[in-house]
Amino acid sequence: MGRESVGISVSKKEDFSEWYTQVVLKAKLADYAPVKGLIVLRPDGYSIWESLKSTFDKKFAQNGIRNGFLPVLIPESLLGKEKKHFAGFNPEVFWVTHSGDNEVGDRLALRPTSETLAYTLYAKWIKSWRDLPLKINFWNTALRAEIKATKPFLRTSEFLWQEGHTVHSTEEEAREEVKKILEIYKNTVEEELAIPVVIGKKSEKEKFVGAVYTTTMESIMPDGKALQMGTSHFLGQNFSKPFEVKFADRDNVEHFAWQTSWGVSWRLIGAMIMVHGDDKGLVLPPKVAPIQVVIVPIYNSDEDKLRVMQKVEGIKEELESTSIRVHIDDRNELSPGYKFNDWEMKGVPLRIEIGPKDIQQQKVVLAKRYNKEKIDLILKDIEKVDLILKEIQKNMLKNAREQAERNTIEISEYTEFKEKMEKGGFFNAAWCGKQVCEDKIKEETGADIRVIPFDREKRYSKCIYCKEPSSMIPIFARGY
Amino acid sequence: MGRESVGISVSKKEDFSEWYTQVVLKAKLADYAPVKGLIVLRPDGYSIWESLKSTFDKKFAQNGIRNGFLPVLIPESLLGKEKKHFAGFNPEVFWVTHSGDNEVGDRLALRPTSETLAYTLYAKWIKSWRDLPLKINFWNTALRAEIKATKPFLRTSEFLWQEGHTVHSTEEEAREEVKKILEIYKNTVEEELAIPVVIGKKSEKEKFVGAVYTTTMESIMPDGKALQMGTSHFLGQNFSKPFEVKFADRDNVEHFAWQTSWGVSWRLIGAMIMVHGDDKGLVLPPKVAPIQVVIVPIYNSDEDKLRVMQKVEGIKEELESTSIRVHIDDRNELSPGYKFNDWEMKGVPLRIEIGPKDIQQQKVVLAKRYNKEKIDLILKDIEKVDLILKEIQKNMLKNAREQAERNTIEISEYTEFKEKMEKGGFFNAAWCGKQVCEDKIKEETGADIRVIPFDREKRYSKCIYCKEPSSMIPIFARGY
Repeated sequence: MGRESVGISVSKKEDFSEWYTQVVLKAKLADYAPVKGLIVLRPDGYSIWESLKSTFDKKFAQNGIRNGFLPVLIPESLLGKEKKHFAGFNPEVFWVTHSGDNEVGDRLALRPTSETLAYTLYAKWIKSWRDLPLKINFWNTALRAEIKATKPFLRTSEFLWQEGHTVHSTEEEAREEVKKILEIYKNTVEEELAIPVVIGKKSEKEKFVGAVYTTTMESIMPDGKALQMGTSHFLGQNFSKPFEVKFADRDNVEHFAWQTSWGVSWRLIGAMIMVHGDDKGLVLPPKVAPIQVVIVPIYNSDEDKLRVMQKVEGIKEELESTSIRVHIDDRNELSPGYKFNDWEMKGVPLRIEIGPKDIQQQKVVLAKRYNKEKIDLILKDIEKVDLILKEIQKNMLKNAREQAERNTIEISEYTEFKEKMEKGGFFNAAWCGKQVCEDKIKEETGADIRVIPFDREKRYSKCIYCKEPSSMIPIFARGY
Repeated sequence: MGRESVGISVSKKEDFSEWYTQVVLKAKLADYAPVKGLIVLRPDGYSIWESLKSTFDKKFAQNGIRNGFLPVLIPESLLGKEKKHFAGFNPEVFWVTHSGDNEVGDRLALRPTSETLAYTLYAKWIKSWRDLPLKINFWNTALRAEIKATKPFLRTSEFLWQEGHTVHSTEEEAREEVKKILEIYKNTVEEELAIPVVIGKKSEKEKFVGAVYTTTMESIMPDGKALQMGTSHFLGQNFSKPFEVKFADRDNVEHFAWQTSWGVSWRLIGAMIMVHGDDKGLVLPPKVAPIQVVIVPIYNSDEDKLRVMQKVEGIKEELESTSIRVHIDDRNELSPGYKFNDWEMKGVPLRIEIGPKDIQQQKVVLAKRYNKEKIDLILKDIEKVDLILKEIQKNMLKNAREQAERNTIEISEYTEFKEKMEKGGFFNAAWCGKQVCEDKIKEETGADIRVIPFDREKRYSKCIYCKEPSSMIPIFARGY
């Protein structure tokens, strides 16, 4: 059957990085593009992104956010307006210098992020308080040249994301928006991808340079490393001043506006693969699975086949009537065993096996992908599949939460911190708030402050590094 | 109210080009980006694109087509593989030469179209007949440097589009696919945008250079110029051979595959603006309108306001229960007259006016945008609004069809052809099939062969130019 059909050749535990890459490629989610650092999405991979997109779109719309389109090219001159913000991107920017055989005048950057472009336009569009709040989201890609080895969904030079940019007349409203978005992010990731996240603030050092503060959602991966899953920034007036995003208030006095920006990327798909996958391949949460139920008919004779296929069609129809996404694997030349492996590799949440004997007994066999459980279901209860899928979704989150908890450690001694950090994990450790300690910890252990959880922003203890009084308990971890 | 609220300052008839630009900007569909040739879409513009996208996605899915993602960067070396196809794009290609301060090795082209990239991957993915047909669509942008003046939606250096790329095991199936797609295009444009199209083939000269033949859908604009609305190409084995897109058939013999590619762009939005707009601004077909019904409450006292607003909320709720997109314009400081103009500029298909007197008489006033008709509707018949919207949609197509017919001329004398072409229009004229006549006609009148309608591919008459026997009756027109 060719090389692709062969299973994953390493175990998740032994060689996590290689395991990850094999799952991505063999489950046919993505492939490498001809340019180093770039990947393409195959339909099964893109379909997961579309599912997330549609959930976010609904929630954004409920929050008064609409979508727009921005071009990918930004003139170099524009980028100079907010130099501090842009400096961080400089080494990663792709530059267009020619169109056809002609040099372009001002060099054109491929969008690493769109603050400068969006706010140039916002300054034109916003005149009075009546134009506020202005809340626009853009589904596009960002381009940042990656010099390290490509890792599909995690480290690529172009990535799918959404970037939201809102403008408000008051500081309070903008701060509120930052929070609302982070909540949308959190409940979407937990409910759709079954990945638990911790939300809170970034430290000054780790925040988006253009922001007054950055809020973030972070998850711990099975290899003990932290993954930043999305950020929501309070920009204050850091951009509205240089870009002159101003509005006349009800009293006709002009004010600089208050802004936010926020984004999640296809990195969420990478997290989903890492958190749920196993040695047999991908494991998809039912909500985002392109195929939720695969039916594998089992027969040895043409006569059996006829009988089985008839039953199978009936089951499919019944499941589809409750909006379940069903596929029948009726490939003739392949054995049931081969098909089982194939769909397990692809992570389909639920498999239905049905043969002549099952029909005799008026039942089917259900095989759950996430925990490998096999159960019988009597045919007249087939509508229970919907409930079973919901239960799978819930249990996958529960399992992931337990896994994350096992990887989370309360720690107060620095020697223990240093030692245990070698194995990875989320470390809850008190911090005095001084960057010098943050830097030293990074230098000596490789761990950053990933997030200062909202409920631990004010916790008085002793800094794990300098032993001075601490004011908070952040999560330290090595990151992706 | 600032400059933006002032109406269109020229008439559609007098200065079509200026009228068009003003409608786009003042209805807030789009705006110019800081780089020449580029535009941005504001939410009302992008929402029309999203509506089209969702209709196409449904129809593509029914036809077994799934979506994927391709990066924007294509290495120069790859483009050399099918030089003939690529030569046409050369002068328009944006080139990335640097990332950060470093030169990239092989220059990178910003995607002018993705055949070369997609087929490099397809060659890897396709091994046997079991992998076919492979049908993937990509919603992205294409980049082609425009040197002429920017025209939003019509002439921009980056444009939103979809590009579909399919691979088949037989020639017949691929030809069939080309046709199916063109039909999807035609019925979507006619049903959603209320624009009639003519479908058929391009001449050898006008086809996509990489194709064996190109099918097209063309529309006539109110200024008499033709607009290409979408194309569906039969690529034969023109790409499968250089890119080695091969498959092992059931008999295990390797064959080159048969391919198609096809696309529509946001140009469709441009056509919609031109065909339906009037001197008051945009006119939106209900199916794609972000707001289908705007309710303008009318009151002079706070007491009236309370009564009117209560009624208005009830109407909104009732309409929304049948999935109609409703907006209440409750802006306090603005007069009803101002609001009427504002929503007419934005093209909202139906306005409901309601004041205290209307409430007394248990009715509302309906104002239809497309024909300016005003009618009374008794309140208990409010559910008829849904029917009225459907009727508007139908009538807009009917009117557009009549307008197109008035602009279509049967013609057999070349002197008359030359004379009348000055005023524009679709010219049905017989042609011998020789490129020398096609070239001469273009040179002398500025008209191209836009399309050879399927039902006129075999019509024997006399070539309008050389008077030799003709074999078909194409449509000649000057184009956008």
